[in-house]
This record gives sequence, C-alpha cells and structure tokens, in this order.
Amino acid sequence: MMPDVISQLKLTHEAALRVLHAAMAKATELGVPQCVTVVDEAGHLLAFVRMTGARFLSIDSSLNKARAAASSRRDTLPRQAADAEIQLAVTTGGKNVTLLGGVPIIVDGQCVGAVGVGSGTGEQDREVALAAVRAVAGAKTEFG
Amino acid sequence: MMPDVISQLKLTHEAALRVLHAAMAKATELGVPQCVTVVDEAGHLLAFVRMTGARFLSIDSSLNKARAAASSRRDTLPRQAADAEIQLAVTTGGKNVTLLGGVPIIVDGQCVGAVGVGSGTGEQDREVALAAVRAVAGAKTEFG
Amino acid sequence: MMPDVISQLKLTHEAALRVLHAAMAKATELGVPQCVTVVDEAGHLLAFVRMTGARFLSIDSSLNKARAAASSRRDTLPRQAADAEIQLAVTTGGKNVTLLGGVPIIVDGQCVGAVGVGSGTGEQDREVALAAVRAVAGAKTEFG
Amino acid sequence: MMPDVISQLKLTHEAALRVLHAAMAKATELGVPQCVTVVDEAGHLLAFVRMTGARFLSIDSSLNKARAAASSRRDTLPRQAADAEIQLAVTTGGKNVTLLGGVPIIVDGQCVGAVGVGSGTGEQDREVALAAVRAVAGAKTEFG
Repeated sequence: MMPDVISQLKLTHEAALRVLHAAMAKATELGVPQCVTVVDEAGHLLAFVRMTGARFLSIDSSLNKARAAASSRRDTLPRQAADAEIQLAVTTGGKNVTLLGGVPIIVDGQCVGAVGVGSGTGEQDREVALAAVRAVAGAKTEFG
Repeated sequence: MMPDVISQLKLTHEAALRVLHAAMAKATELGVPQCVTVVDEAGHLLAFVRMTGARFLSIDSSLNKARAAASSRRDTLPRQAADAEIQLAVTTGGKNVTLLGGVPIIVDGQCVGAVGVGSGTGEQDREVALAAVRAVAGAKTEFG
Repeated sequence: MMPDVISQLKLTHEAALRVLHAAMAKATELGVPQCVTVVDEAGHLLAFVRMTGARFLSIDSSLNKARAAASSRRDTLPRQAADAEIQLAVTTGGKNVTLLGGVPIIVDGQCVGAVGVGSGTGEQDREVALAAVRAVAGAKTEFG
Repeated sequence: MMPDVISQLKLTHEAALRVLHAAMAKATELGVPQCVTVVDEAGHLLAFVRMTGARFLSIDSSLNKARAAASSRRDTLPRQAADAEIQLAVTTGGKNVTLLGGVPIIVDGQCVGAVGVGSGTGEQDREVALAAVRAVAGAKTEFG
C-alpha cells in the first residue's frame, strides 16, 4: 500500500537565528547593512533582521528571494529569457524572483529552508546569503 | 549540541486525492455539490475539486478554511467573541477564519495537512470534511 | 460513459443591456440614481452603468452583490448569524456579501447571470434589481 | 426576436479529475513533479493537484496559465513584443500570462476550460498540458 505521509526535515528557529547572526557578521565585514530573512521549506517566515541603516523596501525583496529559493530549492539566479522571468515574478505576485541573494539551505539532500538577503548590491547580497547558510550544521547550498 | 533540523510528516498528493474522493462521496450522499480543498501542513494547496453545481465563491472559502485548520491544527469553529474572530479574519486578509468546514489531518500526533469544504450549510461542510479526513490511513481530527 | 461536458445557458450582452435599461427606469421612478451591474453565471462583468449622481463607492458593492447572487443562485439576503456572514465576506475578499440588492437571473431553471444594484437604501437597491430582471424573456428570480 | 440566452458547453468535474491524472502520468514519464490546474471556461478553479516535490510557487503560476488560456482560448505562448506581454501581465494582476504551459480545452469548437502546468521547464510544462487535454473525450487544443 502507498504510504499517505512522507518524512521531511525542517529548520529549527534556533538554527534560523544562527543564520541571521552569520549573515550579520558577513554584512559587517563587507560594511553594508542588510535585511536578512530566513524561511522554512514552505517559504514561511522563520527569522528576520533589518540591520540599522538597511533599506526598508528590502524587507520585502529579502523575503521574496528567500521564498523563491525555498520553492525552487536553488539559488536565485537568472536562468532563462528575461521576459519569462519577469512574467513569472508578476504572475506570483512578486514572490518568484531570480534577483541575486536567495539561497536554499540543504541538509542531507533535502531543502530545509532558505535565506534571502537584500539592501546591498546583488553580489553583496549573494555573498552574505552564502556565508549565512554555513551556520547550519552540515548545510549545503545549490552549488555545494 | 542542539540539532538544526527536526523531522516532520507531510501528506502525499496520492493521499490528498483520496481525501477529495472521500469528500465527494459524502457530498453526493448528502445531495450537496461541494468545493473541497486539501492543503499541506504549511497551508499550501495540494489538491482541489469543485463539483458540478458548487458555488464558485466557495473556492476561496474552502481554501481559507483548510488553511486556517492547518495553521491552528484545530477544526474551524467559533471559539471566542465574534468581533475578535472577525478582526482576526480581517487582519489576515481573510485567511484566518472559523467558519465551519475546516478540519486538520493529524497523523501520529502531527498535523500533516487539512481539508476545507464549502458550498453547503456550515454543518454540511463540516460533515463532509470530517468524513474526508478518514481517507488518510491512521488519520485523526482535532476531536479524535 | 460519463459525458465530459454539460450544456449551460448564458446571458447575451443584448439582454444584459436591456437589464440596465429596466433598472434605470425603476431607479428614475424611485428618484434615486443607481450603480447597476450585470454579470454572467460565472460572476464576470457583462454590463454596467453608473447613473449621474450615483456614489462611486457603489461601483464595487453593486458588482459584489451581483457576483454573490450568481454564485449562490439566490438573492443576497441575510440568512444566518451575522458573524458568519461577515467572515464569509472577509474570506472571499468582499465578494460573498448578503447586502440587499443582488438578484439571480434564472431562465429555464438555470442561473444565467445576476444583477446587483447599489447607491440607494438596501430596500431601494433590491426593488430596482427585482424590476431589472424582468427585462429578460422568461426570467425568474429566486422567489419566482 | 433576439434570444436572451445562448447555450454553452461546460466541463464536468469528473472530466477535470481525469485531466489531472493524465497530466500526472505524463509528468511521471518525464520525471518532473508538477502543479496541475484545471479551470472552467470562465477561469474558475475546477481541479488541482501539486505532486510531491513540485514547487509551491508554481501553484499560482499554473493557475494563471490555465486562466489565461481559458480567457484567450489559445495556448499561452509569446505572441507579441516582450514589453507588451509583460505590461499585460502586470495590468491584470499577474493573471494574463504567456508563459508556456497553459492550454485551452476545446470541444465542438467551444472552449470548455483550460489546463495550466508549472514546476518544470516551460517546454516540460507545455508537453504535460498538451497530453492532459487528451483525457477529455473529443477535445482539441488551439493547434488541433
């Protein structure tokens, strides 16, 4: 008989808070205040911080980057024609974006959540997100 | 050391489709066409059917009943003063409702999803939802 | 074998425009300028007029009254506890209302559309809507 | 005299559920879990399934692809300048998209509904949608 439920890993809030701290450390090193969002594997908010000086409109973009990374289980990166990516963003109410700075948190081959970073350049946002994921024991990102 | 991830059960889409069929059988028995929504434990849509003749405005209400039951891990039932319940509905954009017809699906003590039913009377909606949950192996609702 | 499609009646735009005119005639007789919306059986806009002097916020309420009548195939009337009706309105984004003034257009026992009227008192809105439906050949409302 | 109503075909929920199953079979063959939405000719949700492993942000995009195909009675395909298509998506709140994967269900020359698929590549989504339509007796898509 087909089982009705499957088992799945989920990030704890303690781990999510450690992700925030790792992100803040990297942002401070780079000298750029950031908005940092951690979501669970379903894209729901787990932890968030807006560092002093970070842009308030980056609250939403960091959330949507994290949500998009959790949904696709991949980094938010341009991967197809620009007009298709724009339409995907529009048709999901801005949730499905490929702006740099969203990174999945992968443990034992499962996506357990994601981090999204915004308020710097795309490259800074991505660098902070990649560093932040390392705070989770055994975590990998899309590219290892 | 505190583990960074926890394990959680999740409903399969095969089970969700069986929930739809059990709901349709009960709705047919009652003689009332229904909208039936199954969501996962995070409130995301897993499966849906609108039976011929069911009201199209019940699409959203069945979804929101399911989502509210998944979030609270309880049946959608009035539990406090009406004005507080209405304010909760308003402040969550209509997602947090206590209209009859939303029931969590609980397996091994964990909420693995929920079903929401709409288009009949509140009592019919609830009866259909309670019957539908039984299609999941070992599933209980809030009240057993 | 179960047929994959069923046949359904749908209001023409010519009939919808006649409904507007019948509504305007009754509104003029009552001395109250009105917003009048005609929707098809799926609740999509077919025809609309805002008479000179009618309230612009009644544009939306006349649309939602019509949509609710098309969905339920009944007049928009209070039918259950006030808090449940308010929650239904909220959970459908304001679409499922029971404010007076929405009336289904029923031909050969099928709901083919609905009319919604707003900008007067509830009783005036309802009176205009009931008169307007008579412009459709053979049409009945919920109560005949 | 001009008749006030016209006759129109409408998809049953039994047929819609068969469309889901045909889509799941093709998705399994391709090895890509999908979100599959079936809407009626008015764009209202009839049936939906999210296969285990499909992206949760594809729930909305599969719905909007289906809705756009039902409205245009054509496949969702780029047909004009990218900026115009993006503006159309924006001005309809993300509903009018031309992302690959939306296909109308045409019976006896009438659009009776549509299917929308999302979570794979655009080409995979479209292939699954085209296969799914074949589950409806006598159904054609835009291109036969």
